[in-house]
Amino acid sequence: MITVDQAQTLCLAGLGILGTEDVPITQAAGRTLITPARATRPQPPFAASSMDGYAVANDAVMPATAFKVVGEAAAGHAWDGTVQTGEALRIFTGAPMPHGTDRVVIQEDVTRDGDTITLNIDLDQSRYIRPVGVDFPADFILPSPRLLTPSDIALLAAMNSATVTVSRKPRVALIATGDELVMPGGDPRPDQIIASNIFGLKALIEQHGGEANILPITADTKDALHATFTTAIEADLIVTIGGASVGDHDLVGKVAQEFGLDRAFYKIAMRPGKPLMSGTMHGKPFLGLPGNPVSAMVCGHLFLLPMLRKMSGLAQVLPTIVSATLTHDLSANGARAHYMRAQITETENGREIIAFDRQDSALLTVLSDANALIVRPIADSALKAGTLVQSIQL
Amino acid sequence: MITVDQAQTLCLAGLGILGTEDVPITQAAGRTLITPARATRPQPPFAASSMDGYAVANDAVMPATAFKVVGEAAAGHAWDGTVQTGEALRIFTGAPMPHGTDRVVIQEDVTRDGDTITLNIDLDQSRYIRPVGVDFPADFILPSPRLLTPSDIALLAAMNSATVTVSRKPRVALIATGDELVMPGGDPRPDQIIASNIFGLKALIEQHGGEANILPITADTKDALHATFTTAIEADLIVTIGGASVGDHDLVGKVAQEFGLDRAFYKIAMRPGKPLMSGTMHGKPFLGLPGNPVSAMVCGHLFLLPMLRKMSGLAQVLPTIVSATLTHDLSANGARAHYMRAQITETENGREIIAFDRQDSALLTVLSDANALIVRPIADSALKAGTLVQSIQL
Repeated sequence: MITVDQAQTLCLAGLGILGTEDVPITQAAGRTLITPARATRPQPPFAASSMDGYAVANDAVMPATAFKVVGEAAAGHAWDGTVQTGEALRIFTGAPMPHGTDRVVIQEDVTRDGDTITLNIDLDQSRYIRPVGVDFPADFILPSPRLLTPSDIALLAAMNSATVTVSRKPRVALIATGDELVMPGGDPRPDQIIASNIFGLKALIEQHGGEANILPITADTKDALHATFTTAIEADLIVTIGGASVGDHDLVGKVAQEFGLDRAFYKIAMRPGKPLMSGTMHGKPFLGLPGNPVSAMVCGHLFLLPMLRKMSGLAQVLPTIVSATLTHDLSANGARAHYMRAQITETENGREIIAFDRQDSALLTVLSDANALIVRPIADSALKAGTLVQSIQL
Repeated sequence: MITVDQAQTLCLAGLGILGTEDVPITQAAGRTLITPARATRPQPPFAASSMDGYAVANDAVMPATAFKVVGEAAAGHAWDGTVQTGEALRIFTGAPMPHGTDRVVIQEDVTRDGDTITLNIDLDQSRYIRPVGVDFPADFILPSPRLLTPSDIALLAAMNSATVTVSRKPRVALIATGDELVMPGGDPRPDQIIASNIFGLKALIEQHGGEANILPITADTKDALHATFTTAIEADLIVTIGGASVGDHDLVGKVAQEFGLDRAFYKIAMRPGKPLMSGTMHGKPFLGLPGNPVSAMVCGHLFLLPMLRKMSGLAQVLPTIVSATLTHDLSANGARAHYMRAQITETENGREIIAFDRQDSALLTVLSDANALIVRPIADSALKAGTLVQSIQL
């Protein structure tokens, strides 16, 4: 058995992006920017008024001074002349500042009579100008790789980038194996159960920028597995669920190797999820997840999502570790790292975390109520309530 | 001016779900479950072996005892007989336990010779049986409302729920107003800028379970606004951006009221985002966001997302407040609540947070680098490094 860290390293080895595509920014949120985006002009592209008022020369501003109003500028409607001594321009928020001015006196500080304004005695001292390029300069670059957020999309729009170059989405083939499995909505025999892992994993993959294709449930025979692998090999990443133990009916490993799997490892020192394997099959990355529902989902977070992130071109691919205060005692851990299903609560004093009593890897109800996994290293000693523990948010 | 809390209450008043629809579980992640989902049988539906080994009567298990192997059961292949005294059944993980047995002796603890097994001297004392219904009973209900996660999807599949009833997605009409605006990829005049808010907001809405329709950029004229509102009123929520101040060119409020807006409030005591309005327009909720890019996005998080969540049927709709340790001093806050753009870093000791030096509401570059907002209440006193502050993650 190897450690989780070693397994993650082996799973990620050699992975990279599968290609790029140009997408409109309306479809780019959640995608990974691969080519840096470049601005073509500064933002704002001109010195702009940030208030409604009168543009004047700052040197001329003194209480009770009068100015002649020579015109008007609004957002999208520049005034092209030059404001001379003794003159002011009516100006609105977002309008370009005209030549000859470097201050906006807000309208509340002015008395207007026809074409003449007179400044009040008490004047707001701010200039109310947004300088050229205060947000970004003309040569601004949004660097890559970058997982694009809604704020990034607004910024890209402001940069006049209508399309951006992102990595192609990894296509994942999901293979559930086992004669006991029936699809949801089906009519199971008394000795059968409903296939669940492939659906949870498909949702997880799609939430993290991949495309998932659920292949037909594959029977526990060599021929059936062979046929499924023949289809699956077209994908960018082949994921099997179940059939990965050493039992007479656990054929996935055997048939995958016959089919050309170059196995990197098999079995890791973790709970839940010991029977995990990875490798490459005819050049395609391959991940064999355990069949227990909770094990499959936890290994999805720990191994499959990092692989997807790396295939999307992201730099940080491993799960973010967050600390939280344990609200109860935990007994010592054994010879395998334990990823305990837990619930984080945000309090005024920070994150508190509680592990569920029931940690059996068959309990989807418990996983469904969990929003985090407490990470217990191998041979971790018993922990007291109040200890800061490391966890992964689900 | 009203407070942020008051404004949130007014924005949310009277909102509810728009209808329901049945969707396959492959499309249900991120949607809000509205009708509780019901299981039709327990999981597991039968007592199942959790290991490969031999099913026997626990009473008969003693070191060095011999049993006759009378058959075999595998996952999906029950053995229908009854195991008698002195008999054992070869059994594999996931297979139903046969009548007459209540323990699995793992294959590592057995020596097999033809049809006879002999137990070893040292025996693992676990019974290795997953009882009927240990995950959930036959009458299990997944309660609603519930924002469905990938783990929930796996659970729903295990419950044999092929489809679920979720709330219909709210359709949001996004209206950017202003003669200065040009669409991304366009050719702006020197006094124009690129429309950015609608793109950031569209991404935000779609990330949170809504559908966003960007309407054509609307000029600063009554006729243009009137025409746009005529189209927008078909949506479930009408959102304008910009034009909400009191200037001569800020027509949105005036024309909206002519068009039938029943305004609930206008102006809130917050930075960024003072000129915010909400109300109802011919029975449809209406939100008028400020035109400054950062103000629009921050108000999107504080007001628009809660409205979307309520229209999706969720119970908790306001942003989650998380505490974080300030890494530097902050000066006192003034008469408006301040939502400071900030960066949270996860450390071994918890969340640390740093506010950006530049807090101008025109700076999309700063917002884009922020992953949180520090919440400064009205008249908040100066804060020292090391203080725990409240924040909202972006």
